[in-house]
Amino acid sequence: MSQLALSGAVLDRLSGISRARGAPSLGERLASLERWVRDDLAGFEAELAAIPRGARVVHAAAHHLLELGGKHLRPLCVALASRFGDGFTPRARSLAVAVELVHSATLLHDDVVDLATQRRGAPAACVVYGNAASIFAGDWLLVTALRRIGAAGVDGLLDRMLAVIEEMIVAESVQLERRGKLAGARDDYFAIVEGKTAALFRWAMIAGARAAGLSAAAEGALERYGLHLGVAFQAIDDELDYADTTGKDPLADLREGKVTYPLVVALEREPALRADLERLLADEDVRPAEDAEDALAAIAARIRATGALAATRALAEDHVRRALGVLEELPAGPARDALTTVALASLERTS
Amino acid sequence: MSQLALSGAVLDRLSGISRARGAPSLGERLASLERWVRDDLAGFEAELAAIPRGARVVHAAAHHLLELGGKHLRPLCVALASRFGDGFTPRARSLAVAVELVHSATLLHDDVVDLATQRRGAPAACVVYGNAASIFAGDWLLVTALRRIGAAGVDGLLDRMLAVIEEMIVAESVQLERRGKLAGARDDYFAIVEGKTAALFRWAMIAGARAAGLSAAAEGALERYGLHLGVAFQAIDDELDYADTTGKDPLADLREGKVTYPLVVALEREPALRADLERLLADEDVRPAEDAEDALAAIAARIRATGALAATRALAEDHVRRALGVLEELPAGPARDALTTVALASLERTS
Repeated sequence: MSQLALSGAVLDRLSGISRARGAPSLGERLASLERWVRDDLAGFEAELAAIPRGARVVHAAAHHLLELGGKHLRPLCVALASRFGDGFTPRARSLAVAVELVHSATLLHDDVVDLATQRRGAPAACVVYGNAASIFAGDWLLVTALRRIGAAGVDGLLDRMLAVIEEMIVAESVQLERRGKLAGARDDYFAIVEGKTAALFRWAMIAGARAAGLSAAAEGALERYGLHLGVAFQAIDDELDYADTTGKDPLADLREGKVTYPLVVALEREPALRADLERLLADEDVRPAEDAEDALAAIAARIRATGALAATRALAEDHVRRALGVLEELPAGPARDALTTVALASLERTS
Repeated sequence: MSQLALSGAVLDRLSGISRARGAPSLGERLASLERWVRDDLAGFEAELAAIPRGARVVHAAAHHLLELGGKHLRPLCVALASRFGDGFTPRARSLAVAVELVHSATLLHDDVVDLATQRRGAPAACVVYGNAASIFAGDWLLVTALRRIGAAGVDGLLDRMLAVIEEMIVAESVQLERRGKLAGARDDYFAIVEGKTAALFRWAMIAGARAAGLSAAAEGALERYGLHLGVAFQAIDDELDYADTTGKDPLADLREGKVTYPLVVALEREPALRADLERLLADEDVRPAEDAEDALAAIAARIRATGALAATRALAEDHVRRALGVLEELPAGPARDALTTVALASLERTS
């Protein structure tokens, strides 16, 4: 959990939410969560590290990414959902590994598509091993995850994951088509976020619930929690494109002309930005690199000046609030406290 | 079947095999096969054409490839295997569509990895829609195929397909690592062919057998037939890299430094080729394009001069012979005749 705990303090404007739940500080909450899930996460990490390591470049590229760690937030979702029922059994743990493998597969393909150079503070796999190896490594992780889900034998989960992956692909496709076409992006933004990010969080919650034998009502509530957590998570991710703390290329999304929430808001508030940004994206190949960097930084400054980052944070907070509302439908106890902490902490992450 | 029938004549040296089986000419055989499977193939093609067509670029890229047709040899394998039992039922037909979708998915990813410009006589999807759309389109076809296999509900087939896809990925990885490293390639060649090509033919035979309720013994024989047909098919594919009838870029494999059987044989017979070809592959980026084309053509001529293409044909013929041997284990009748024809015709294709 240390990656979630980086800032260590509750934002003033979050304290309203926290107090409403009679909660201790986020720092205390995180310490308590960390104690409570430490063994589960250690078990997960041991199993992830034991993924068979073939001798081929495709395996090397996949393990390059896996060994850089990551937040393991999706596996944590599986673990916490399972704690409402039978707990983080070997079967639930295997599903937690699977969801992390699917997530990693999408990162490998995304980094090729986005021409990314950095990931988790290190050179991206496509830089180290090449695009071809990264594409095949993503395929390999995906298949490994699907075989694992099949072997777990929990009713409906494999078919559901295939549906999620299809949602993710369609969302990536929408994102691709929107690149550099900046008008009227708000509707597409939510289609992209739900497919690209929230769908996998939802699956993680469902997987934990089903592996642990929860009721359909509890599973439904956890799934909605996953949806809202996913949207909040992506909104903060969008905000972090304007930070330099993430271990990814700063302004990478803006540089690619991706539809992010700050951009959606900024274009609504300052329409003149659109032509300037479209020109910058179109000129990418002809402009000297340094000049282009300066122009990009200037556009980023204008986006900040519209208050778009604050609006993005407000969107994330709204979805955290809705996630906390859904939790009221679930029985009180340490599992619910833990999910509350995860939702609150999602607003505080710096990477 | 018209794509298989293009040459329309039995090679003289095949007539031995044909006579040994008391068979009519290949032309007559193909006409008879065509009549016998016409309805099955029409049903397959209608179902393939009805694959849901989403509105996104990912769907457009996938359909671009599907609509260029192709030989549909893997679906034909499903159909013919099923004809030993319950026949080409809707369930078997759905599996035939799935195997074609998996095959198409690999073509989309391969064309990105290989920087291909042509496929089936038309611009490759990666040229028309870009690499990103082609990668996601391959992912989409794969997931669509897996969902279809899951929905067919035939015991073990989904898990088996996941295993096949993993074999294909590992084989692609071996091929990637071997590029431009030309020494001692014979062992790797067979690992690549079995994983990259034969594994999916095997699955097609198994799928047809299981959907049609065949015995384990019959399924085993059909699977071995699929293996040998797959190796023969790939050997002819390797040979066709030296032809200009395929609708693909000629000498594309050689240009990429791929391990093909003609290259394996030529390097064994004329070791001096190795240094010259390695130099050509290494210089790729610095040499003027026309000059590089001439040098490539010169190397191709030296490979031909070693008799490597005849050796490749001999390899294909050997595997066709073994495929025909396996068919002896199956009951005589039109299904067995049809598989005999497919094996013989695989040596005659020109694309």
